[in-house]
Amino acid sequence: MRPVSPVRPLIPSSDCLAIEVIDQTRLPHQSHVVKLSTRDEVAHAIQSMIVRGAPLIGASAAWGLVFALRDNASDLSLEESCAILNATRPTAVNLAWALKRMRDHLLPLASSDRFEAAQREALAICDEDEAQNYAIGQHGLAILRALYKQKQRPLRLLTHCNAGALATVGWGTALAPMYLAQLAGLPFEVWVDETRPRNQGALTAWELHKAGITHTYVADNAGGHLMQHGLVDCVIVGADRVSAQGDVCNKIGTYLKALAAKEAGIPFYAAVPSPTIDWTIQDALKEIPIEERHADEVTWVQGLNQAGDLTAVRVTPVGVQSGNPAFDVTPARLVSGILTEHGVYPACSEELKPLREKCG
Amino acid sequence: MRPVSPVRPLIPSSDCLAIEVIDQTRLPHQSHVVKLSTRDEVAHAIQSMIVRGAPLIGASAAWGLVFALRDNASDLSLEESCAILNATRPTAVNLAWALKRMRDHLLPLASSDRFEAAQREALAICDEDEAQNYAIGQHGLAILRALYKQKQRPLRLLTHCNAGALATVGWGTALAPMYLAQLAGLPFEVWVDETRPRNQGALTAWELHKAGITHTYVADNAGGHLMQHGLVDCVIVGADRVSAQGDVCNKIGTYLKALAAKEAGIPFYAAVPSPTIDWTIQDALKEIPIEERHADEVTWVQGLNQAGDLTAVRVTPVGVQSGNPAFDVTPARLVSGILTEHGVYPACSEELKPLREKCG
Repeated sequence: MRPVSPVRPLIPSSDCLAIEVIDQTRLPHQSHVVKLSTRDEVAHAIQSMIVRGAPLIGASAAWGLVFALRDNASDLSLEESCAILNATRPTAVNLAWALKRMRDHLLPLASSDRFEAAQREALAICDEDEAQNYAIGQHGLAILRALYKQKQRPLRLLTHCNAGALATVGWGTALAPMYLAQLAGLPFEVWVDETRPRNQGALTAWELHKAGITHTYVADNAGGHLMQHGLVDCVIVGADRVSAQGDVCNKIGTYLKALAAKEAGIPFYAAVPSPTIDWTIQDALKEIPIEERHADEVTWVQGLNQAGDLTAVRVTPVGVQSGNPAFDVTPARLVSGILTEHGVYPACSEELKPLREKCG
Repeated sequence: MRPVSPVRPLIPSSDCLAIEVIDQTRLPHQSHVVKLSTRDEVAHAIQSMIVRGAPLIGASAAWGLVFALRDNASDLSLEESCAILNATRPTAVNLAWALKRMRDHLLPLASSDRFEAAQREALAICDEDEAQNYAIGQHGLAILRALYKQKQRPLRLLTHCNAGALATVGWGTALAPMYLAQLAGLPFEVWVDETRPRNQGALTAWELHKAGITHTYVADNAGGHLMQHGLVDCVIVGADRVSAQGDVCNKIGTYLKALAAKEAGIPFYAAVPSPTIDWTIQDALKEIPIEERHADEVTWVQGLNQAGDLTAVRVTPVGVQSGNPAFDVTPARLVSGILTEHGVYPACSEELKPLREKCG
């Protein structure tokens, strides 16, 4: 029996006619739950990052398809809704994976059976996500136990962006080993990268604070210095996509941390459920298009003003042009291992092959 | 005859009884000039970063000493004021250098002669700073011309923090080659790192915008990705201190950019006036203490709200702890050259020796 995840950002209603999601654009300042009950509400929630994080995007999209089929269960509706939901975010492979799984399961069925089957399949995707992440946590905990045995002092971990419970249906990916380490009584603390421009580090800090895990929020610029001075024992990040040869496509800035970790001899892991691995891609640097997001994400910063009101401020002078590449690729040679629900695999084609066979 | 610097952040009054400085804590949103006419006003301006940037801090401190000697020109006053001004910022070597130069010049004089001598010496420090930076620009321009000859297309440069005219008395260090390249008609554009947590990149963007130089403001996380994709031809940064073996102590995050530049085979230069080189230090990583600044710099961000009012917002949830190391060290092996007013020197003890001899 799995324990319950410390944070649950997607909860289906008991009749499975709607989902309640935490509005992550208002976190960490305001905890606001949004009810989604149509395909277009779900599509908007993904596009506007009300839900974010590759696994949560996949699960949300599955529910979007459920709601579409409630209204119209025809082949055309199914195909059209898959296309619309699939176009909401360009990089997350889980999105395409979840939609393909739903489509492959539903298309052969009579249209009258599709809605209920879709509900069951979306529930299964959610449950499997939690189970997968818990398993990632268990394999990650083994790595941390071994590190602790070697260091014989509280561990210092570093993470970038938010690959926590908030990015998944439960437990998170990069944070799952930390939640399990806490349950196991292993002493550690966490450096949390701010993760500009969207400051997802504040979400990570929100989660860790809620769970009572000691952590320190730092500018993205700090990590290299911390690693040079022996203040980081292990880097664990999530990923939006991992290639068949182990390249890691993750939030912009991940690559810089991987370079610094390599330079300092610090292990660097990408924690992902196996569907995040895109077996059709080898060289992620050449093959994955990097999303260029709106410049306002860089020039405007949101927070609470001194009166406690949620406020956006412009940090650059008017007239200054900004660029906003959202992801980068960490080449496999900088990655110590891909941490999955099936175990830890070295980041190279040959060593990842057994995982590919396991995943069918 | 030198042209006039595009921005002048410190202007002595014609009677040399005060200086006018641009309040850089209010830039890039508000252009506000502050008049300083006492030692303690100068000390406060340095400490609170109204003036910032190693060379400008040194020149400002010299004026602080001028004002102290106007009030009291005794040996005790001179020594005490040097100590007070020297303690305003721990890392900038120009601060100690300028104060030592003033003290060595003034202490042998009769106390009645000290005030006027101090005025002349402070003016000389300012003029020499502008001349030095202009010379840095000329040597840097030669590097950029050679790069342009090789690439045969507009160059893309990247800089971190603000080592511009605003950080000096005029021209800047890292930006001097860019200002001179513009005067020379060389086509180029600039990637400007945001430089969290204090967003000094917005100052750089303000300067470049004012000078009409094409630039793009990006999150600190973006640089690695840009370099991987061939979108950066050269990195030029300033430095707060350079060691005798060529290690570069500069704004936090510089080291990460140097790692990425090395990985991509992109030249990485630190542009500094020779007094920034601390010949007493070899291994900067071991020998330079890194200033830990207040956590509020990370958790609060300042900008203009939608009504155009200067506003600070808190970006993290209350209760989250932050860390704020202000500088890091880029080891000499990652540095292509130290760009000084005397020319470009490879970053190693042996090659820097001739410069040391030149500097006496």
